[in-house]
Amino acid sequence: METFADRLIKAIEKKQNPSIVGLDPRLEQIPSFIKEEMIKKYGKTFEAAAESIIFFNKKIIDAVKDIVPAVKPQIAFYEKYLAPGIRAFKETVDYAKSKGLIVIEDGKRNDIGSTAQAYSEAHLGKVDLFGEKVSAFDVDCITVNPYLGIDGIAPFIADVKKHGKGIFVLVKTSNPSSGDFQDLETKGKKIYEVVADLVNKWNQDTIGNSGYGSVGAVVGATYPEEAVILRKLMPKSIFLVPGYGAQGGGAKDTIPCFNRDGYGAVINSSREIIFAYEKQKREADFDKAAKEAAVKMKDDLNNALKEAGIRAW
Amino acid sequence: METFADRLIKAIEKKQNPSIVGLDPRLEQIPSFIKEEMIKKYGKTFEAAAESIIFFNKKIIDAVKDIVPAVKPQIAFYEKYLAPGIRAFKETVDYAKSKGLIVIEDGKRNDIGSTAQAYSEAHLGKVDLFGEKVSAFDVDCITVNPYLGIDGIAPFIADVKKHGKGIFVLVKTSNPSSGDFQDLETKGKKIYEVVADLVNKWNQDTIGNSGYGSVGAVVGATYPEEAVILRKLMPKSIFLVPGYGAQGGGAKDTIPCFNRDGYGAVINSSREIIFAYEKQKREADFDKAAKEAAVKMKDDLNNALKEAGIRAW
Repeated sequence: METFADRLIKAIEKKQNPSIVGLDPRLEQIPSFIKEEMIKKYGKTFEAAAESIIFFNKKIIDAVKDIVPAVKPQIAFYEKYLAPGIRAFKETVDYAKSKGLIVIEDGKRNDIGSTAQAYSEAHLGKVDLFGEKVSAFDVDCITVNPYLGIDGIAPFIADVKKHGKGIFVLVKTSNPSSGDFQDLETKGKKIYEVVADLVNKWNQDTIGNSGYGSVGAVVGATYPEEAVILRKLMPKSIFLVPGYGAQGGGAKDTIPCFNRDGYGAVINSSREIIFAYEKQKREADFDKAAKEAAVKMKDDLNNALKEAGIRAW
Repeated sequence: METFADRLIKAIEKKQNPSIVGLDPRLEQIPSFIKEEMIKKYGKTFEAAAESIIFFNKKIIDAVKDIVPAVKPQIAFYEKYLAPGIRAFKETVDYAKSKGLIVIEDGKRNDIGSTAQAYSEAHLGKVDLFGEKVSAFDVDCITVNPYLGIDGIAPFIADVKKHGKGIFVLVKTSNPSSGDFQDLETKGKKIYEVVADLVNKWNQDTIGNSGYGSVGAVVGATYPEEAVILRKLMPKSIFLVPGYGAQGGGAKDTIPCFNRDGYGAVINSSREIIFAYEKQKREADFDKAAKEAAVKMKDDLNNALKEAGIRAW
């Protein structure tokens, strides 16, 4: 079975693109013509919200499927619409996978051992359904929060190994207050460095043919200095890098997240890609606007990598 | 509007009971006669899992509603069954509330600001549905993970104030490896103490008539020594205390979580209450077995509080 990291690296090579698209379908920003049609069919209901999201996401996926290696749906924006929202999430995952995209779920799940196992079975592994083992969300990878320590992470790592899946552990997040706890110092090390050392350790026996392992790290593009340190501490982990674009990180800020081989990082952008149509007032062409924005991001990142002397595709 | 803390304290007074029941409906442990009936109706599907959970939970809620002030559904055990599972979660929440119980969702949600807001709207506040503000999960309270710092918590606190809701912030969790990060020392303080100081600060302007605020803390019964310190650092926060029962914490271990007024803590037990029927082989009477176990826990805790000279109901 191919590992998650190997599949992801292969997809990055194929698309010649380390950038991914965040599927955060904020209902307020979905084009009106889609919502009006769904309200006509289903009324102002959670079903109409779910159908709007599914329609929107499928068009976005069709638009970017040949450009990016992966998509990152943020489950908060689906959970908002209860059961219909979760159905929209699952349909989005299945559709993206059917189009050859890798799906990285942004869920930041975490709990104590036996409950972490329930989350892992739900999102990465197999669920016991009356004695039969069946897939539930079946995403390729999920983000997880490390605050509960190893026994909250271990069940996910078991499923990473068993099912060729991946996790990205929150190490240094992109938000302004990420330092409240992550930057605290303990015995001369920052907390994010302590987490990084453990991620590096957990990653070791998941390393595949690509040289990378499937226990990765979330490292915000908004903290390039910290990224320099973290890249050294976790040389064989892939970084999932939020914060590019709407959150203020530029292409240059993402460079420290890459290894000198040009791999080791996937850079996410959500709003600036999927809602690119807004600034351009191209509602009917929202998918084309997203495609153009995705191409622009790809070029922006590859130019920065070229300028940094790391890689020229 | 009554605050969450005031409602919870009032419910504890009314039931003369600081213990709550965790609704973690592990499908494997739900009585066979329920599952067989649902399989007959729906086949071996997620719907059958959801219907089994709803049937089971309603019976448990009916059995314990006059004994405990609150229930704590753990959403991981519902999420496992995709959209039908979320429907089962929502029906459980609604049913428990209709029976006068307070609902504390164990979700451990966390994200950066704008996404934390989406989670908060979904679980505590109101969701924008095509321009109308509607409730989604509408639980009374949710557990949250602090690793991302204040801007991941602030949106929840805003909804706590606006909608009379509550949060419990993970401070010192009950699992064996909780010390991996929570116990690290920074400037002479443990990380859990740093989190506690912030919880105490965040709690200040949510304090109601009961003298308690609605920004509480998760403090495991498995760490009674740490609880002594944490009780002092967060005098006006309610503690949500997991780890009693199946996880190894005894009634005496929970005592440091209480204030001398006999309040300030709710003690959770899940498996030992809802699946009490298993050891006694009373499948048909599973709800009665749960009721007896809930009464036993109430007595156990109140006896320990009495022995400690804190309170005698």
